[in-house]
Amino acid sequence: MKDIINESAITLGVCYYPEHWSDDLWESDFERMKALGFRYVRMAEFAWTIFEPSEGEFDFSLFDKAINLAGKYDLKVILGTPTATPPVWLTEKYPEVLNVSQGGITYRHGSRRHYNYNSDKYRKLSARIVTKMAKHYHNNKNVVGWQIDNEINCEISVFYSDADHEKFRQWLQEKYQSLDALNEAWGTVFWNQTYTDWNQVYLTRPTVNDSQNPHHALDEKRFISDSTIAFAKMQADIIRSYTKQQWVTTNGMFGHLDNHKLTQDILDFYAYDSYPNFNKIIEDTSVKPLQDRKWSLNLSTVRSLGGPFAIFEQQAGPGGWVNRIEQPTPKPGQLRLWTYQSLAHGADMILYFRWRTATKGSEIYWHGINDYHNLPNRRIAEIEQISQEIQKIGNDLIGASYEANVGILTDYDNEWDGEEDVWYGSFLSKSKEAWFKAFQYNHIPVDIYDLRETTTLEELAKYQVLVYPHAAILTEKTAALLEEYVVQGGKIVFGCRTGYKDKTGQPYMMAFPGYIKDLVGVTVEDYTLLNSLQPAPTVQLFGREKIEVHGFNEVLHKEKDDVAFLGYYGNAYYANKPALARRSHGKGSAYYFGGVFDFEVANAILEDLNVTDYRNEFDLTDSVELAVRKKKDKTYYLLLNFVDSKQHVYLKRSMRDLISGKQLSGEIEIDGYDVFILE
Amino acid sequence: MKDIINESAITLGVCYYPEHWSDDLWESDFERMKALGFRYVRMAEFAWTIFEPSEGEFDFSLFDKAINLAGKYDLKVILGTPTATPPVWLTEKYPEVLNVSQGGITYRHGSRRHYNYNSDKYRKLSARIVTKMAKHYHNNKNVVGWQIDNEINCEISVFYSDADHEKFRQWLQEKYQSLDALNEAWGTVFWNQTYTDWNQVYLTRPTVNDSQNPHHALDEKRFISDSTIAFAKMQADIIRSYTKQQWVTTNGMFGHLDNHKLTQDILDFYAYDSYPNFNKIIEDTSVKPLQDRKWSLNLSTVRSLGGPFAIFEQQAGPGGWVNRIEQPTPKPGQLRLWTYQSLAHGADMILYFRWRTATKGSEIYWHGINDYHNLPNRRIAEIEQISQEIQKIGNDLIGASYEANVGILTDYDNEWDGEEDVWYGSFLSKSKEAWFKAFQYNHIPVDIYDLRETTTLEELAKYQVLVYPHAAILTEKTAALLEEYVVQGGKIVFGCRTGYKDKTGQPYMMAFPGYIKDLVGVTVEDYTLLNSLQPAPTVQLFGREKIEVHGFNEVLHKEKDDVAFLGYYGNAYYANKPALARRSHGKGSAYYFGGVFDFEVANAILEDLNVTDYRNEFDLTDSVELAVRKKKDKTYYLLLNFVDSKQHVYLKRSMRDLISGKQLSGEIEIDGYDVFILE
Amino acid sequence: MKDIINESAITLGVCYYPEHWSDDLWESDFERMKALGFRYVRMAEFAWTIFEPSEGEFDFSLFDKAINLAGKYDLKVILGTPTATPPVWLTEKYPEVLNVSQGGITYRHGSRRHYNYNSDKYRKLSARIVTKMAKHYHNNKNVVGWQIDNEINCEISVFYSDADHEKFRQWLQEKYQSLDALNEAWGTVFWNQTYTDWNQVYLTRPTVNDSQNPHHALDEKRFISDSTIAFAKMQADIIRSYTKQQWVTTNGMFGHLDNHKLTQDILDFYAYDSYPNFNKIIEDTSVKPLQDRKWSLNLSTVRSLGGPFAIFEQQAGPGGWVNRIEQPTPKPGQLRLWTYQSLAHGADMILYFRWRTATKGSEIYWHGINDYHNLPNRRIAEIEQISQEIQKIGNDLIGASYEANVGILTDYDNEWDGEEDVWYGSFLSKSKEAWFKAFQYNHIPVDIYDLRETTTLEELAKYQVLVYPHAAILTEKTAALLEEYVVQGGKIVFGCRTGYKDKTGQPYMMAFPGYIKDLVGVTVEDYTLLNSLQPAPTVQLFGREKIEVHGFNEVLHKEKDDVAFLGYYGNAYYANKPALARRSHGKGSAYYFGGVFDFEVANAILEDLNVTDYRNEFDLTDSVELAVRKKKDKTYYLLLNFVDSKQHVYLKRSMRDLISGKQLSGEIEIDGYDVFILE
Repeated sequence: MKDIINESAITLGVCYYPEHWSDDLWESDFERMKALGFRYVRMAEFAWTIFEPSEGEFDFSLFDKAINLAGKYDLKVILGTPTATPPVWLTEKYPEVLNVSQGGITYRHGSRRHYNYNSDKYRKLSARIVTKMAKHYHNNKNVVGWQIDNEINCEISVFYSDADHEKFRQWLQEKYQSLDALNEAWGTVFWNQTYTDWNQVYLTRPTVNDSQNPHHALDEKRFISDSTIAFAKMQADIIRSYTKQQWVTTNGMFGHLDNHKLTQDILDFYAYDSYPNFNKIIEDTSVKPLQDRKWSLNLSTVRSLGGPFAIFEQQAGPGGWVNRIEQPTPKPGQLRLWTYQSLAHGADMILYFRWRTATKGSEIYWHGINDYHNLPNRRIAEIEQISQEIQKIGNDLIGASYEANVGILTDYDNEWDGEEDVWYGSFLSKSKEAWFKAFQYNHIPVDIYDLRETTTLEELAKYQVLVYPHAAILTEKTAALLEEYVVQGGKIVFGCRTGYKDKTGQPYMMAFPGYIKDLVGVTVEDYTLLNSLQPAPTVQLFGREKIEVHGFNEVLHKEKDDVAFLGYYGNAYYANKPALARRSHGKGSAYYFGGVFDFEVANAILEDLNVTDYRNEFDLTDSVELAVRKKKDKTYYLLLNFVDSKQHVYLKRSMRDLISGKQLSGEIEIDGYDVFILE
Repeated sequence: MKDIINESAITLGVCYYPEHWSDDLWESDFERMKALGFRYVRMAEFAWTIFEPSEGEFDFSLFDKAINLAGKYDLKVILGTPTATPPVWLTEKYPEVLNVSQGGITYRHGSRRHYNYNSDKYRKLSARIVTKMAKHYHNNKNVVGWQIDNEINCEISVFYSDADHEKFRQWLQEKYQSLDALNEAWGTVFWNQTYTDWNQVYLTRPTVNDSQNPHHALDEKRFISDSTIAFAKMQADIIRSYTKQQWVTTNGMFGHLDNHKLTQDILDFYAYDSYPNFNKIIEDTSVKPLQDRKWSLNLSTVRSLGGPFAIFEQQAGPGGWVNRIEQPTPKPGQLRLWTYQSLAHGADMILYFRWRTATKGSEIYWHGINDYHNLPNRRIAEIEQISQEIQKIGNDLIGASYEANVGILTDYDNEWDGEEDVWYGSFLSKSKEAWFKAFQYNHIPVDIYDLRETTTLEELAKYQVLVYPHAAILTEKTAALLEEYVVQGGKIVFGCRTGYKDKTGQPYMMAFPGYIKDLVGVTVEDYTLLNSLQPAPTVQLFGREKIEVHGFNEVLHKEKDDVAFLGYYGNAYYANKPALARRSHGKGSAYYFGGVFDFEVANAILEDLNVTDYRNEFDLTDSVELAVRKKKDKTYYLLLNFVDSKQHVYLKRSMRDLISGKQLSGEIEIDGYDVFILE
Repeated sequence: MKDIINESAITLGVCYYPEHWSDDLWESDFERMKALGFRYVRMAEFAWTIFEPSEGEFDFSLFDKAINLAGKYDLKVILGTPTATPPVWLTEKYPEVLNVSQGGITYRHGSRRHYNYNSDKYRKLSARIVTKMAKHYHNNKNVVGWQIDNEINCEISVFYSDADHEKFRQWLQEKYQSLDALNEAWGTVFWNQTYTDWNQVYLTRPTVNDSQNPHHALDEKRFISDSTIAFAKMQADIIRSYTKQQWVTTNGMFGHLDNHKLTQDILDFYAYDSYPNFNKIIEDTSVKPLQDRKWSLNLSTVRSLGGPFAIFEQQAGPGGWVNRIEQPTPKPGQLRLWTYQSLAHGADMILYFRWRTATKGSEIYWHGINDYHNLPNRRIAEIEQISQEIQKIGNDLIGASYEANVGILTDYDNEWDGEEDVWYGSFLSKSKEAWFKAFQYNHIPVDIYDLRETTTLEELAKYQVLVYPHAAILTEKTAALLEEYVVQGGKIVFGCRTGYKDKTGQPYMMAFPGYIKDLVGVTVEDYTLLNSLQPAPTVQLFGREKIEVHGFNEVLHKEKDDVAFLGYYGNAYYANKPALARRSHGKGSAYYFGGVFDFEVANAILEDLNVTDYRNEFDLTDSVELAVRKKKDKTYYLLLNFVDSKQHVYLKRSMRDLISGKQLSGEIEIDGYDVFILE
């Protein structure tokens, strides 16, 4: 990313909608942005009607003027293509471009994202507006990059227009070539669902009991992802046909979209919209909830897309729509903390959303830096402080890599299959979060790693430990790769429900856990789903106290003599039967736990994994996140305090805090929400 | 109302459906009504098919006979126009008259209220049946008045038929004249919603995430109210073109309807349907819940429409539909209590619903006075007692005015805007109820007052105190009026979220609370929405104990030196910052509280307000409501005991109880559910 | 049943889907079935496309081969007609065959049961496939019987296609002959619903508030039942036109279907699908919940259809669809227990569902005996044990009758009317379960008895006690029958809400409880519905401790001098008023309880009823069910332990356990989930 954006330091910026405000305000707005130290301003992503007030008639005057004025204050402009909100003249004239619910309700003009990706008409009209914009702005020196559409697949990520049904059929024909292959992949012999003509095939439709063929449902999600990428690619291709200087990205991340493929195939870098205060409207009753620190997990996922990234919407106040999303106000210090959270996880460019809170429409409570009244407020003051600090440290950190010795594996097949499959789907995020917590509270930086067909041993080998919690879908090829990983010295941890499905989502006719049976040296002898109406069984790991387990239990059966059982069930009809196994294999070892991970379980196993950590450098408290970024020979340790109370931590050697410039050692105090960047 | 209905005493009556019963029963029914002392009988509001069995064919024989027989027993008949339930021949032939859900489901024949107000066909057919009825009955001496339709906007108060979309467009054209004005008012530049042709404009339609443009949603409610009134007006005009002797009213009150405009423009007086036992199916977890006494608040709202009113449906037993509304049976004494509750708040005519429980249809559990079996029961006995009492006291109380020194301000703009806006909408009813409770439990009679464009200082000046809890929409003109009110000696109390929106629902580019900033002498420096996932902050008012606050907090900033801070936040990041301000201004004073009112908060402020009360006359317990009605030089004090246990109260001077005729003083006992009317 | 199936012993079998598996597996599958002692294999009920791959083209080769191979291993084949899952070529070509929701959403191909019974096209195409199959297999000696369709009315039991509306109209014309009669029966004069032309009449359609005319809603359910039976009859008639040797049945049981009429008119015997582990996903917070023992109640209902029956799907593992139904795994011993539960209640043939868990489609978690891996597991071992035991005892028990001295009356009119009517509907199942528990925990075997127009005194007279909890609909004729029953010596128990409605669901103009007033000697003086927002009143029965009551209370009034009051309300406004009455009449007596029965109430009344029980034979614990089956002069006592802990019971005389062959007496121990069959 660095090369493309041509910056030698971490930079800040803001999202701005000149069309929302009297043009009297523009100049003072840009002037104040510059005074705040901002370098970037994003605009235009919802302005189609301004660019094309009626079909085929184009007008660039408003944005020409705004971009010109921004340039006067040294602000670099990022332009959004406006396809997220088609004009009403378009949707009224061509209703076939609209998205439709599975049950047949057409989503109309009046909100946003009400279109589909597969209508030829919408593709054509989108192509034209993007072409016109690219042509007009490709050599505007104030314009440095493009955002395609806006928050693709946000709010809604299913599509059932006629065009979607039609294109799905074509997509399937290309994928399967023959109906026989499709029938086989979808297991249509079950319940007499066999297709005998391509015209009988649709996206999922309303059925009795709202129960869809699960293999069909999985392919539908793959198709949606491919459709989305194709729509974005069409736009990227147009822009690049005009310019190689201006970069192309989009901002996210949302459902039913292979963001890794999107980034790799189309984008110069990825941009993320980071709103940690969503944690305040999402109930989390788990042990030691992450709250806003969960965005460190989200940012780690963004990082997994490859390389540094940008934040195009960094939270600048409470978020809210008029009729939903009721976020309280961030506390003093949190905006700064969250900015450093983005930076700690690899963001090299950070834009706040947005300059001033809108006075109209659904987002009048999605607060910008400035309030409606445009007078000074505490959030501006806080951002001013951040800006000054980042000007001081930005040179050092730009391009530094995030250092992690451990990884949590994820993949799209299981994520999408698990949406429909309640027999493991909900375990995926639970276990991922549990492991993330275990690493976080032990101050072990962790990567999220997207396991793909193309993943190589080399890519995995850099990790001491991999955790792959519930890979129901797991191919022979992947199993072989993971075995190689262990043989060369890696440690891997699996949870229940691993390895029993093929790529179509159909169970193998094999003992669980399928192709990794030899790697872990156990099979599953018996198993049961657990639900909230039953008393929770217990498990005893490493001879510790018994703890309750939830979700699923598998009873393990030894298949290899060199397997060690490290945990047993404590009650239920399978009391005293094995729950946790470890097999040493080659230079490494493989763990299999017959349940869903929670924080306590993950923590217990983590202790046995013996991962390199930073205990020789620091004694830290739970509420302080440690992130490590490296650049050439320099290592930066970022300490972020996620609570409002002072934390006492201990530096085992003398280090310099880049923000304050102070040299520190021994016991030091971190204020509530405060941050140190130590080297 | 008195002049029109031509009664010199409070009168009772009943709703009766001759068409439901064998005509053998009619005469004995009317005879028994008369014996019970009833003067009025309401009928015919669901009888369209009886009047017009097929299109254009009319038959009045059934009701002619019934009305004639009622007249024989000195019963005055109120006729309902039958438009609430169109015949099936009509809806099957002209399906365009039906109401449709936003998502496109047409509501069909089979229940009631399944039509729309804007279909030309329905208007025309409604006009014809009303014309025929008016023509036939306008000089029938037994018919004294008309009820238009029935419970307008009950059950459903949104309408999305084609006719509604079309008429909304016309209504907007008339209101805004130009699309530019509409685009400005709806802030359509946000999310590219700009309209470029009138044909693109509809009522709200299904959108992704079910999030509508809030300014659009507000106009939709205004339109529904206007449509409803226009439909009612059409009927009233027809009736009045035939008769000036028979009065015109309708019964309510329900949503999306400006009942004040309706009453003022069309009705001779308003009629209300009072079912206090709905409290038994509505959960209320607030402090000191009002329960059935909440109907005193409802009746106060009815009173705000102006002058005395009628009750057309006074609860006469448990209410219930076959598949919903599961009310338990009123306890012995409650029917009597609730009748006096209506009377206490200004009702001069009270009709029970209904004579006998229906044996067919959805309302077989909506109990009348008589049971299916038509044998004596305890409810008849109780109503007999009431009737005898009211015959004794009715002369005195008729036309007496309800006396209140304090008022709670309400308005339709905020009520309707707040439906969509979760950032203040739910506070409106919470704070209104909290203040109502504070006044009730302090035995201070209170009015509800509807603040309108046309409200004058004179109208407000009669109140010592006005409470206007969360007027988000507040114009410069209203702010000026309220300032005049304070200057001339009034006290006014505002809550959080006041004054930040204009009439379109768009926030002003001003510091909160907008145009009343000078009146209250403070601005809002910081604010946060509170939700149930966060611990509740506390507030300390007048140096009392800290109490928890919910919903919203605003931190106040002094703008005028003469502001006194009377309360501070007790924790949260804004601990010790001001929460409650009072500014003396002219002869009066203005209070601003940066939160949502609950009973404790309202009670604390009420103490500081120093309102005239009745402590020199009475010592009353919480459960006893005090109402005061005045007529010329006489003052009547009504004491209503809302619990089933005896209450001990103290009269500080000797008074006569009109019901018993006894002279009372000192400590007296009020039985469970009993009532005194003292003078 | 015995004659038709031509078996001299209880037999086992399994459901098998050859089309799901490679034909390589078939022979070993059949061989292992035989080795397990199975006699029956059910197949083909979802195989329409295999039989008819395109319209009018037929192919029997796959099943010919499978049936032939099954025959080789002495397995008798039961064939399902495949109408539960129409082919996609059919539904795409003739979409009018699909079922439609009330709101208009068509249920499409992709799950199962998405068709309607009333489309002429579907009837015709169904008739053809059934004809073809019958013709082809009627003289195949390996095929012994037919299952019509599969789980009729499972998943969905309402139908709103155009064909359904049309046929409903015809059904009504036949039933009522005139619109006047229909209007009277549906009480359409209420809310002006009067029909003036047959074309105005539909099945219930969307209405405001989703409140339907309740009498209309009741007829709709009767129509659905008749439609369902007509559809099944069409198939049965076709099969029987080809064969008298092969029997005809179907499997169930589900809603909106008069299974008694179905069985009597069409079937040779009834088959039930028994999944007791559904109890693990249904919350039951009542006292002493039945859990899986509730299937004894279900099986008793199946038995009420008349004579012995089959189980076509006996639970063989956890049940689950991919996106719903999350059953945990049956514990060791439970499959065996539940098999004996079926046998105890009258099943003479038991087929497990299914041979091997499917690896495709929505039911990959509906576990068969074999797992995906096809290796040995504990469930196979358990079924092997059962099979050996049943081979030992099956001769003895076949055809033995279940012995019960008491009965709980049910009827379809109240079941269907109560679906819509929340003022009594939910009481039906609550009270039925409460009484079932009381009988079960007192070890008194009980029948469910379906009271019909045609029920005779003779049929009832065999019971010492009948309980008829809340027969809201109760005709004069039924009342007379029940009175005769009491006069001849029976005891009968009624609960609240009895006898107030006629067959249309309209209340009588009579004092409650209508036509049984004289029988019970009381009327209802006052009553109230109770809801969860009110404190529960108490009742004191037989001078015992007061207990809380819920749902409904009726205050009883003595109408006959010979009535004894046995219980009184303990609080509420009707404290000390009578709640329970008993009247001796003829040789018997009638009880009336003014509330809903719970376990404690039923238990208290049961003590007073003085029923013949088995205390002279056994002392049993709560968790042990006692069932009694008799055959000629032999009586078999089945003891089933429904908990996982050992139970100590006492045999008061020496008996032989058929399973172990041991002679037992005095205190004996029953293991967790273990079973004794004593003679």
